[in-house]
Amino acid sequence: MKKIKNNFTEKLIINKYFKTLSLNKKGTFNFENDAAYLNIPYKNCKFAVTTDAILENIDFFKNDNPKSIAQKITTVNLSDLYAMGAIPHSYLLNLCLPSYINNDWLKSFCNYLKKLQLKYNFYLLGGDLSKSDNLIISSTFFGYINKNINVYQNKVNLDDDIWVSGNIGESKIGLEIIRKNITVDKNLREYFINKYLYPKPCKLGPNLALYSSSIIDVSDGFIGDLKKMLNDKYGASISLNKIPLSIKAKKLIFDLKKIKLEHVLNSGDDYSLIIVSNKKYRKKIKNIANKNKVKISRVGKVVLEKGVQFDSYINNNIIKEYDHFS
Amino acid sequence: MKKIKNNFTEKLIINKYFKTLSLNKKGTFNFENDAAYLNIPYKNCKFAVTTDAILENIDFFKNDNPKSIAQKITTVNLSDLYAMGAIPHSYLLNLCLPSYINNDWLKSFCNYLKKLQLKYNFYLLGGDLSKSDNLIISSTFFGYINKNINVYQNKVNLDDDIWVSGNIGESKIGLEIIRKNITVDKNLREYFINKYLYPKPCKLGPNLALYSSSIIDVSDGFIGDLKKMLNDKYGASISLNKIPLSIKAKKLIFDLKKIKLEHVLNSGDDYSLIIVSNKKYRKKIKNIANKNKVKISRVGKVVLEKGVQFDSYINNNIIKEYDHFS
Repeated sequence: MKKIKNNFTEKLIINKYFKTLSLNKKGTFNFENDAAYLNIPYKNCKFAVTTDAILENIDFFKNDNPKSIAQKITTVNLSDLYAMGAIPHSYLLNLCLPSYINNDWLKSFCNYLKKLQLKYNFYLLGGDLSKSDNLIISSTFFGYINKNINVYQNKVNLDDDIWVSGNIGESKIGLEIIRKNITVDKNLREYFINKYLYPKPCKLGPNLALYSSSIIDVSDGFIGDLKKMLNDKYGASISLNKIPLSIKAKKLIFDLKKIKLEHVLNSGDDYSLIIVSNKKYRKKIKNIANKNKVKISRVGKVVLEKGVQFDSYINNNIIKEYDHFS
Repeated sequence: MKKIKNNFTEKLIINKYFKTLSLNKKGTFNFENDAAYLNIPYKNCKFAVTTDAILENIDFFKNDNPKSIAQKITTVNLSDLYAMGAIPHSYLLNLCLPSYINNDWLKSFCNYLKKLQLKYNFYLLGGDLSKSDNLIISSTFFGYINKNINVYQNKVNLDDDIWVSGNIGESKIGLEIIRKNITVDKNLREYFINKYLYPKPCKLGPNLALYSSSIIDVSDGFIGDLKKMLNDKYGASISLNKIPLSIKAKKLIFDLKKIKLEHVLNSGDDYSLIIVSNKKYRKKIKNIANKNKVKISRVGKVVLEKGVQFDSYINNNIIKEYDHFS
């Protein structure tokens, strides 16, 4: 829906970079209208919508690869859709561009977006361009879900299983390595920084929607997001040794002691899903994860006593949540 | 869809200010989920979506009244929806807030949004909060329209009538008075600054959709937006004395010569609609405008010779378009 100003620069940006992202869908009007139409793909569906912004110096560093920034704005939003049980459909892009953004940057950014669009099957509806001092990208994503299904984030029942997809802490370790300039060997360094720069969403949400009490994506650390699910009504009992950590993460945390486990549990945009589910679906959930080739770990259960309790020692002073707004 | 971080500040902002804007609609989950569901209100409808951002120092001044900023983010988006023939439904809000934003500011901003929501009948679905150096507000609006109607912005036919709603240039004159500190008497000053600070969208679009070749809202000046409609295929012949100007604007332009007519035609966010329509609908369009108590003026017609031609002298050197991106 970007209004095409008859100015070479803006028209050029849209024609050269953004039109290709619409995948020739009819309702986008090739970005020549200020708004786009969104046709409902299936009769029994409703739309899920989510919006998120990422900002220079907060969610990424100034000179980060535009591919990484494209990955992040996509993942943060896709992850929200998947956690709502929705399948991606389309998106809008609001770019606030500082003067250092050049053609090469835009080309790389858009090419990578295109790659992600084809991978996850969604297209660009339109957007808006503005000039600004810092790079800020906000985006609204649309997904669809059967109109009778509601996936909640904070409705859990006593004795429900608590599951986690993928591995925890990979992205956080990458960020710690960059920020604190932690010396680790080249392979480990590259592995974790790559996890930080290119976080991936977990697609299991739509498959698990029918068998879950609640689903949330880990975007502020495992403990913080789990607490949101418990909603001050219940607590969680967690087996520390069931928390899924990669072999590389275990090496850095337990062998080399370069990273604290508490940090990894308390912050980081992992985009793993935490799934809280009735015990009767235990087999079903494992089967769905296996079928989709996604690692899934049962880490604990919902209990009466409030708070998140671990079965092993952990420094409780550090168990607090990261907040991007404070 | 704002994720509620367990931090007092962000939770407070959402609970205190934003929850009331959801008007208790079910799909919003009271902002406790990261995404919201959007139910389709009527079977024969499709959604229109538009997104726009407004930025400190570009679209408003740092110390502008939060009510004015609420009006602007609403009008810029509603205007796009109306120009697409769509009726407002709901919206998402992305706020990038600098440290000077306090409770009073948020209260005033949200109260005014609520007032506009009730006036134009739409509600908040969710949003996202971030910290930033400058105030940046981006928003995505949803409207609905009969699924068989498409309103274009740049498909016009030879000999079509060209109409304009409301008056042209009011907001631009207000901005010139502020920026160039033009000395005018207090009443005129207040009148025009108010027009700049509180621009209103024109609701005629949905009523005129069936009788229009194209509709656009004037957000970059009458000439520039008209040129977009002509799409380099046709031209427009315009009667300068038919251009709708308020008595106060005429006084400033022609009597006091404080403002140049060319400036008023070439830039400014008036949010008037330009409607291009077959001659056979002339009576229909007048009737619809009268019924809705909206001033409408037939200012010219679509001609073969490209460009925008006026029947009276105008300094053609100044006939160029404002571009917010250059």
